[in-house]
Amino acid sequence: MNNENISYIPLGGVGDVTKNMHLYEYKDEILIVDSGLGFADETMLGVELLLPDISYLKSTNKKIVGMAITHGHEDHFGALPFILPDLPSFPIYATPLTAEFANEKLEEFGVSKRVQKVDFDGGELRLGSFVLNFIRVTHSVPDSSNIFIKTPVANFYHGSDFKFELNPYDGKKTDFKKIAEVSKQGILCLMSDSLRAEQKGHTPSEAGIYDALVQELEKTKGKLIVTTYSSNIARLNQIITAASKFGRKVCFVGRSVIKAKEAAQNLGYLKIEKGMEVALENIHNIKDQNVVMIVAGSQGQENSALSRIVNGDHKDIKLNSYDTIIFSADPIPGNEISVNSLIDSIARKGARVMYSGITDAFHVSGHAAADDLTLMMDLVKPKKVLPIGGTYKQMVQYKELAKKQGFEDKDIILVENGQEVIFSKDDSTFGKKLNLKNVYVDQISGEEVESFVLRDRQKLASEGVVVVLIEIDSSNGQIINTPNIIVRGLLGQEAKDINKNLIKQLKNSLSQKKNPVTDWIYMRKFIGEVSERYIFKSIRKRPLVLPVVIEV
Amino acid sequence: MNNENISYIPLGGVGDVTKNMHLYEYKDEILIVDSGLGFADETMLGVELLLPDISYLKSTNKKIVGMAITHGHEDHFGALPFILPDLPSFPIYATPLTAEFANEKLEEFGVSKRVQKVDFDGGELRLGSFVLNFIRVTHSVPDSSNIFIKTPVANFYHGSDFKFELNPYDGKKTDFKKIAEVSKQGILCLMSDSLRAEQKGHTPSEAGIYDALVQELEKTKGKLIVTTYSSNIARLNQIITAASKFGRKVCFVGRSVIKAKEAAQNLGYLKIEKGMEVALENIHNIKDQNVVMIVAGSQGQENSALSRIVNGDHKDIKLNSYDTIIFSADPIPGNEISVNSLIDSIARKGARVMYSGITDAFHVSGHAAADDLTLMMDLVKPKKVLPIGGTYKQMVQYKELAKKQGFEDKDIILVENGQEVIFSKDDSTFGKKLNLKNVYVDQISGEEVESFVLRDRQKLASEGVVVVLIEIDSSNGQIINTPNIIVRGLLGQEAKDINKNLIKQLKNSLSQKKNPVTDWIYMRKFIGEVSERYIFKSIRKRPLVLPVVIEV
Repeated sequence: MNNENISYIPLGGVGDVTKNMHLYEYKDEILIVDSGLGFADETMLGVELLLPDISYLKSTNKKIVGMAITHGHEDHFGALPFILPDLPSFPIYATPLTAEFANEKLEEFGVSKRVQKVDFDGGELRLGSFVLNFIRVTHSVPDSSNIFIKTPVANFYHGSDFKFELNPYDGKKTDFKKIAEVSKQGILCLMSDSLRAEQKGHTPSEAGIYDALVQELEKTKGKLIVTTYSSNIARLNQIITAASKFGRKVCFVGRSVIKAKEAAQNLGYLKIEKGMEVALENIHNIKDQNVVMIVAGSQGQENSALSRIVNGDHKDIKLNSYDTIIFSADPIPGNEISVNSLIDSIARKGARVMYSGITDAFHVSGHAAADDLTLMMDLVKPKKVLPIGGTYKQMVQYKELAKKQGFEDKDIILVENGQEVIFSKDDSTFGKKLNLKNVYVDQISGEEVESFVLRDRQKLASEGVVVVLIEIDSSNGQIINTPNIIVRGLLGQEAKDINKNLIKQLKNSLSQKKNPVTDWIYMRKFIGEVSERYIFKSIRKRPLVLPVVIEV
Repeated sequence: MNNENISYIPLGGVGDVTKNMHLYEYKDEILIVDSGLGFADETMLGVELLLPDISYLKSTNKKIVGMAITHGHEDHFGALPFILPDLPSFPIYATPLTAEFANEKLEEFGVSKRVQKVDFDGGELRLGSFVLNFIRVTHSVPDSSNIFIKTPVANFYHGSDFKFELNPYDGKKTDFKKIAEVSKQGILCLMSDSLRAEQKGHTPSEAGIYDALVQELEKTKGKLIVTTYSSNIARLNQIITAASKFGRKVCFVGRSVIKAKEAAQNLGYLKIEKGMEVALENIHNIKDQNVVMIVAGSQGQENSALSRIVNGDHKDIKLNSYDTIIFSADPIPGNEISVNSLIDSIARKGARVMYSGITDAFHVSGHAAADDLTLMMDLVKPKKVLPIGGTYKQMVQYKELAKKQGFEDKDIILVENGQEVIFSKDDSTFGKKLNLKNVYVDQISGEEVESFVLRDRQKLASEGVVVVLIEIDSSNGQIINTPNIIVRGLLGQEAKDINKNLIKQLKNSLSQKKNPVTDWIYMRKFIGEVSERYIFKSIRKRPLVLPVVIEV
């Protein structure tokens, strides 16, 4: 036993916040925790999503003994329909709502539903040599879990996304007792959420939000529109209860909100009294002052229900100046511009709008702040800590917290995605580093985008395209007729310059090599290079040059 | 006199924060206040800057009697070199440092320096029928001014960017006495900064920053690198004084920092004791622990000195793990991704990094918060207020503040860029609305970009390009030889689909109209449309289609 090891390899979710996917290996067995989506930033043109790179899993001879999903957020389960078809079969487990969301996602993509439900009080779950125990934690989606992982070598506490909400709206608190129990078994390493390590103190409670909603409803003359993360069922319940207090009906608008509502209803997590709900198609029968709408699109997404309402493009819902819109969600970093511009548009319509720029009353984070993270270290009492789920700067702040708790530098493990950490019974070393590539999913087709396509798109976007269409006499390699040059995405003056001088330049270059053409591929390349060089010299840009050579 | 009017028209800087440019008109005279740049967001591909649209000024028969520039920030003076060549001659005035910065900018673009300096105690400045008085206010650049504008009809207080810094590092406070004096003359309308109307209370003082720098220097073993807005001369002075306290030399790195330093030195606003400064070329002679560097690039700009240092691309400066980097500037909204990714890279190198995510000690805003804005209303005592320099949601918050001060709805004027407000002696109405267009400046060439070019770029970026190269027999309008189809920026599968089926589709469509071709323009258009339709039907994308028809 003494020489045995557990390998931990993050394929995603370390040094970044999304596309969470973690591997635990023992001998030839692999346990997977989570398989989430990433979200594209503005440099990834025409790309909407990113996936964890699973090349390693596809090429390894080891056996995947199972997967556990920690909670029902897309960045923890959303990659399932993309990756499962490429992997051999293995069992997948998750807590009830998580499984509900994940199976719905699989169904949507035409992949068979196969995530099995585990209950928090269902005891241990054995996957190969790994023994898992799901522990209830509070977070911004119900049924969130941390996972205690027993292995033949050492024990791990996989502490992904959590906060310590002491007044959860559904009454389901973090299971402190169970954490204490598993910690008694001895834990070698705590993998811990680190997203809010920069924030001092404790993350505040959700409890104030209901009161703030009630106060707002007292003032609202027209309809109240609330936008939030669809999966935040506790938030939806608070909104429903507040609406009911004022005798208002609720209306769910937008695909993601409706889907989340239905999944939560299936499990009895969301309760709407009979007659309380009004369907969108019946919204015309009800007065504005009698309704609260829960609407998708809190991140300013271009085609969301909220954007369409605000821009006057929604066929059933019009925004009036006496309405109020509440953003019960902060902008995710990177979405500030679209969220702010949406709020501006609402302000222009004269409607009242509440957002994090002017009030903290309607949203709190679902992640643990510094003092909460410290408390988790105290509860789990690991020998080592390894921050996950944060950017590198947040991992560094987590390290500072751990140092204050007496952890030595060697026991605070900072890794990048793809870095293997080899755990022995009581210590760790760094192992191999997988060379992970970015896997992009095309915005429209949903297919994987090769990175050269992305490079072409970036070039096209910033520097345009020039098509050089040229007829060449095969007997002497000289130009016949006037070449045709098509320029797009460049300035008028630049296009004029290219049209005027590039042909001259090409004629010059070709006249120096008067020979019958034997190699047309070389000729095409030569014309492309001469064009690129001339264009860069003349306008200091490198558009995508497409030489088209016609043999005559 | 009774029927006379003053027209106020913002060409930029209302409903957005940048490209500030305001017109005041009396009879056939126009006074301009500011002419600033805008900054592109990520949807404006290959565009770096925006300009105010001055078409109105170019086409009007009225006479520009002069321009006043309020302060030395690019979004208030940076458009000068772009617009002056297109306008008739008129005098331009600004306070000393503002004029220094503006003239430097003109020189850089090869436009003759023509901004004249006015002193705060220089009394009134007459431009046509307008009488101007520059009033010193505190802001994040020295010599910032508000302008009291007397006209034959009514008086205005142009209160662009300010804060009430009670402990300015250069000792030059807001001239409250002068504000009180001009307010006694009666002010019809206060045009007021509204950028921080969402923030409650007063904007904090700069005074704590020096102490925070000293504390950080006590801990720093290697070099201390501070990055800030170059024009914030008070900040530069604080850094220099703190460095000197520890016997460290200062080194200025990056073009914008060096230029701002020199301009401030020319006026005696920035003082460096003899021997205190070390030039970049001599930096190798000095140990890390003996230097503080002031480095450009606080917004994570890709090619800035700071980015190059962090990424190991700077030829003279290497970042070591014992160094400290301080961000003495918050990310401007929209720059969060690049700033955060730069901070991540620093954290990866193991260097200590201080930024607004973990401490407020190193930066305060230069703009007035809610209570300061209210105080300005109290001091100026205008009949009406008109918020400028903010987004629409911030203007709405300013309106809320004004209502609390007893202003009636009709006396709180919210406008968009291009909206004329016609002021009589004691009232106002809305006038014409100029149809302003977006004026883009190309990133590389510095030339104006037409909006159709931008549309092409967006199309190219998100959906690629398809060149359809086709030879047509002029006698019957049919395809000869195999058409050549070039696809870029699309997925492999999509390109295959297009290559395989588009030709078939084109042959089909053309076979239905066998006639000698007479109109080749129509033929080209027809082929383009058939291609676009087929491609959209087949892959649900609308790439830029370039049909190339060869007549045979």
